[in-house]
Amino acid sequence: MGILRLGHVDITVTDLDLATAYYTEVIGLMETERDEDSVYLKCWDEPNHHSLRLRYAPRVGFDQMSFKVEHESDLGDFENAIQRWGYPVQRVSKGESVGQGESIRFETPSGQTMELVHDMEMVGRATAPINPSPYVEGLKGIAPPRLDHLLITAEEVGDSAQFYMDVFGFRLTEQLLDGAGHQAAVWLETSGRVHDIAIVTGQNGGLHHFAWWLDDWDHVRRSADILAYNGIQLDVGPTRHGITRGNTIYFFDPLGTRNEVFTGGYRPDPDFPTITWTEDHIGRAVFYYEGELNTRFMTVHT
Amino acid sequence: MGILRLGHVDITVTDLDLATAYYTEVIGLMETERDEDSVYLKCWDEPNHHSLRLRYAPRVGFDQMSFKVEHESDLGDFENAIQRWGYPVQRVSKGESVGQGESIRFETPSGQTMELVHDMEMVGRATAPINPSPYVEGLKGIAPPRLDHLLITAEEVGDSAQFYMDVFGFRLTEQLLDGAGHQAAVWLETSGRVHDIAIVTGQNGGLHHFAWWLDDWDHVRRSADILAYNGIQLDVGPTRHGITRGNTIYFFDPLGTRNEVFTGGYRPDPDFPTITWTEDHIGRAVFYYEGELNTRFMTVHT
Amino acid sequence: MGILRLGHVDITVTDLDLATAYYTEVIGLMETERDEDSVYLKCWDEPNHHSLRLRYAPRVGFDQMSFKVEHESDLGDFENAIQRWGYPVQRVSKGESVGQGESIRFETPSGQTMELVHDMEMVGRATAPINPSPYVEGLKGIAPPRLDHLLITAEEVGDSAQFYMDVFGFRLTEQLLDGAGHQAAVWLETSGRVHDIAIVTGQNGGLHHFAWWLDDWDHVRRSADILAYNGIQLDVGPTRHGITRGNTIYFFDPLGTRNEVFTGGYRPDPDFPTITWTEDHIGRAVFYYEGELNTRFMTVHT
Amino acid sequence: MGILRLGHVDITVTDLDLATAYYTEVIGLMETERDEDSVYLKCWDEPNHHSLRLRYAPRVGFDQMSFKVEHESDLGDFENAIQRWGYPVQRVSKGESVGQGESIRFETPSGQTMELVHDMEMVGRATAPINPSPYVEGLKGIAPPRLDHLLITAEEVGDSAQFYMDVFGFRLTEQLLDGAGHQAAVWLETSGRVHDIAIVTGQNGGLHHFAWWLDDWDHVRRSADILAYNGIQLDVGPTRHGITRGNTIYFFDPLGTRNEVFTGGYRPDPDFPTITWTEDHIGRAVFYYEGELNTRFMTVHT
Repeated sequence: MGILRLGHVDITVTDLDLATAYYTEVIGLMETERDEDSVYLKCWDEPNHHSLRLRYAPRVGFDQMSFKVEHESDLGDFENAIQRWGYPVQRVSKGESVGQGESIRFETPSGQTMELVHDMEMVGRATAPINPSPYVEGLKGIAPPRLDHLLITAEEVGDSAQFYMDVFGFRLTEQLLDGAGHQAAVWLETSGRVHDIAIVTGQNGGLHHFAWWLDDWDHVRRSADILAYNGIQLDVGPTRHGITRGNTIYFFDPLGTRNEVFTGGYRPDPDFPTITWTEDHIGRAVFYYEGELNTRFMTVHT
Repeated sequence: MGILRLGHVDITVTDLDLATAYYTEVIGLMETERDEDSVYLKCWDEPNHHSLRLRYAPRVGFDQMSFKVEHESDLGDFENAIQRWGYPVQRVSKGESVGQGESIRFETPSGQTMELVHDMEMVGRATAPINPSPYVEGLKGIAPPRLDHLLITAEEVGDSAQFYMDVFGFRLTEQLLDGAGHQAAVWLETSGRVHDIAIVTGQNGGLHHFAWWLDDWDHVRRSADILAYNGIQLDVGPTRHGITRGNTIYFFDPLGTRNEVFTGGYRPDPDFPTITWTEDHIGRAVFYYEGELNTRFMTVHT
Repeated sequence: MGILRLGHVDITVTDLDLATAYYTEVIGLMETERDEDSVYLKCWDEPNHHSLRLRYAPRVGFDQMSFKVEHESDLGDFENAIQRWGYPVQRVSKGESVGQGESIRFETPSGQTMELVHDMEMVGRATAPINPSPYVEGLKGIAPPRLDHLLITAEEVGDSAQFYMDVFGFRLTEQLLDGAGHQAAVWLETSGRVHDIAIVTGQNGGLHHFAWWLDDWDHVRRSADILAYNGIQLDVGPTRHGITRGNTIYFFDPLGTRNEVFTGGYRPDPDFPTITWTEDHIGRAVFYYEGELNTRFMTVHT
Repeated sequence: MGILRLGHVDITVTDLDLATAYYTEVIGLMETERDEDSVYLKCWDEPNHHSLRLRYAPRVGFDQMSFKVEHESDLGDFENAIQRWGYPVQRVSKGESVGQGESIRFETPSGQTMELVHDMEMVGRATAPINPSPYVEGLKGIAPPRLDHLLITAEEVGDSAQFYMDVFGFRLTEQLLDGAGHQAAVWLETSGRVHDIAIVTGQNGGLHHFAWWLDDWDHVRRSADILAYNGIQLDVGPTRHGITRGNTIYFFDPLGTRNEVFTGGYRPDPDFPTITWTEDHIGRAVFYYEGELNTRFMTVHT
């Protein structure tokens, strides 16, 4: 049994039209469905129904993160494991959530809602299943091929890390230790990338950002061009992380949720030893080029 | 139980000094050990003892491909599964092979020797385990971060594909069908990359090439510069594959074994449908820019 | 007085609609004017009326190359200089040629028609003259920012080189010498780039190719993607020249005129010494990665 | 007569060994000569004796900027023109300045010392004059191919711009106008690049920065990696200019003189109309991605 990847991120927005315009025109996602209060979006190279759900609400926020599991039977196994850890689990029947079958939901130790699902509607990639062109024409905006990871905040990072590792089998690729040797932030993967989820010290329930995958550094430049052209406020970048080695830009959607475009990193095979960062190196660890964090990056989240 | 990745490729060379000079100075591998007839080499970002073994022999050839398994106990489980498939398995004790513990070896349906091993000596990456710089100085030559995949030849590609899928759980990311609808070539993965092993129609026992991973298209250019500077004969490229979408250069080591540098591709999640290519599209499938295969690429292997 | 740059290339095509479709959709030029037998095109970053004229004719061919001079008065000065060299000069009045004022025309020593003009209609770049965005949205196809250079063929390269240098002040950046020490090919510049015109041994009157400028190596890859996507036959590349150091792809328009996309090179200040290549290095000189010329590249021109 | 390019920048440093270590190891220049108080350095692709002179002094400062003229006779012509403009000119004999022949020096309207020289010692590029490899091996640090431009400060930008245009024939590629329509900053070129010198409002005599040319965006990333690896403080970037369209990083040498690495831009043919920026767009004009200037960039210079 196992978690395959981050499936979709569900956020609330205070202006559904504005948010949809941004995510389709600037980020370049494809709208796959719309119901009375929500819009469902996916990247061109993703086959499943959606990787982002925008729901109208009077306040910008974070509804849930949904991870895809390998087998339908994983749902029951994980349900048991989560309950043994002491957390109640809710079953969501097929038909209750748009674009997907049965799922389970629960609150994580750090207060975010997490969902596991196996059965997602297949709507297909933008490329053909037979004799596809590797080059895709007519994409709009940044057009990332897929959703990559998210970063959440937790009061007790170490406890949260343990939860993800013990219950779901996430592996710890990197960790940042505070002066007392406690985990101030952790990077966890299950898909063979440098991180699928990361957790940083902060208030429970928070979403720091979610990230779109880009294929290379030139795509990072093009993203910066497109963001600037559209008047989007950059938070940090283009720059590079010491942690993950990835190249990156942070910026905000028009309602205030932080997005990232991310590329690079290394291949963290399951037998690789965890990389450890100490607090005195936090500047270069997070932003290798600047060597320091900005206040906004440290304090603003949804 | 599962296979993590291609661990090392073992080839024979007719001039050990010349081959070592090429793999350390032009490819930029690090020599980790040398015994009376062999040299062991690894990429800067690989933690294990070696990913390439060069053994002196009077004839250039392919000794074996070695895959790393997740758990020590996988060896026994795979031993049983291989024997059930009807193939004898040989146990190699710790100490018999340099740089690694116990392993199992067997002949695959297409006649190559395959090894499975869990316990490989950890010699560490070129980057520090604590507060590492993401940028590494002083690398020589092309300096790929790691070994990526290999392509072998088989008289019966379909049977071979079945063997890798059924016994080891490889997933079929792409396939090329001949006019009769039979598999003429297959691309298989177990590590979350577009391929760990590929099999193309040809004589049993053959190695078409093995590939070094590069991080981006600019690294492909730099590789071409370095290869040309060193007078290395290019086979094809820089170009792009339709299959895998990757960017690539093929070339030969000084003794005649084909190497590839490869980057790009997509993320083949286990739930992705297989991509199918038909024979009439073989040109663009293999070399998207040229739209045709050269004879050398089709006929020369070791 | 002086020549500023290659202004426009005028070719004949056997299918004006097909040629226009290719140059606007695949190359991504902008059509600025059309009259009964011709279409006028320019790149998005060029301010003048056109850099390519397509004229219908029953045979693919090369009408002329037109260079822009710095001052209107240069026309008379160059007229005298050309006549002193022994070549008759024709005055073309304002209004005779679309999009430009008075010009002079003459046959070069190697039989091509050459035009000099100062007054070209300004239609403007795709970017605004006031507070322009450096990023331009909505471009189609390859979208090179500008025309770069052309390569013509001549029976007597050395005599031709002398003509361009003595009459117009072109500087010799590189030369390829045959075994007897005679110039087999020359690269000449007047604009501070590695070449504005090059001349290679071949029949008089021929056009080997003309080239579109690209800004970087990633743009070369994207060009290859777009060419392959549109089924355009590549001649050579992506590769690199030893001569000029530039990165390149050669390919043919649908009627058979060779195009190039070109980037890189160095800055040949007027005080730089000429670089010399000897015949035995011709392979690496022309195609650094392949180290050899293909027959098609050597023999096909218009 | 004419100015070819910025030839060399002469600065003072308070620690000659530290400055030399930085410019040779981090920037990757080659030391060509050293005398009792100075070190002379050049880029690998520059043929002349030096493009940077470091002179020991108890205070970091700006000695002079030296431009190369096309002909020896230009010195006398420019001497007359400068004197007609009302500025005294000093002749410096051959032998008085290391690595160069006779020159003229004078104080510009904004108080910087400017030198013109034709005869500079040729020490040659790092590439061979005959059959050179386009790829150069063994370069250290960032290894820019050449010096590109400099930015000086002036109390009266408009007067200064007039001086450079009228006396030397510089062309105005871009200008930033304040609310009253006066030039707050200007970009001037004579070499066919977007700028050879720029002038921004500030105190007379100041040097804001000088810039090293890079060949592409990937070289910008590699520069950022190398700067961070060496602990060099970045001022801004990697980012893009609205003005010039170039990609850039600003940073300080260890003694406090600002350096830039710069690539991109367009080709400002002499007949191109000047681009104008208005004060309300200054943020995007200078730093397109950030949309705002930092205080350090505005106030710190030498």
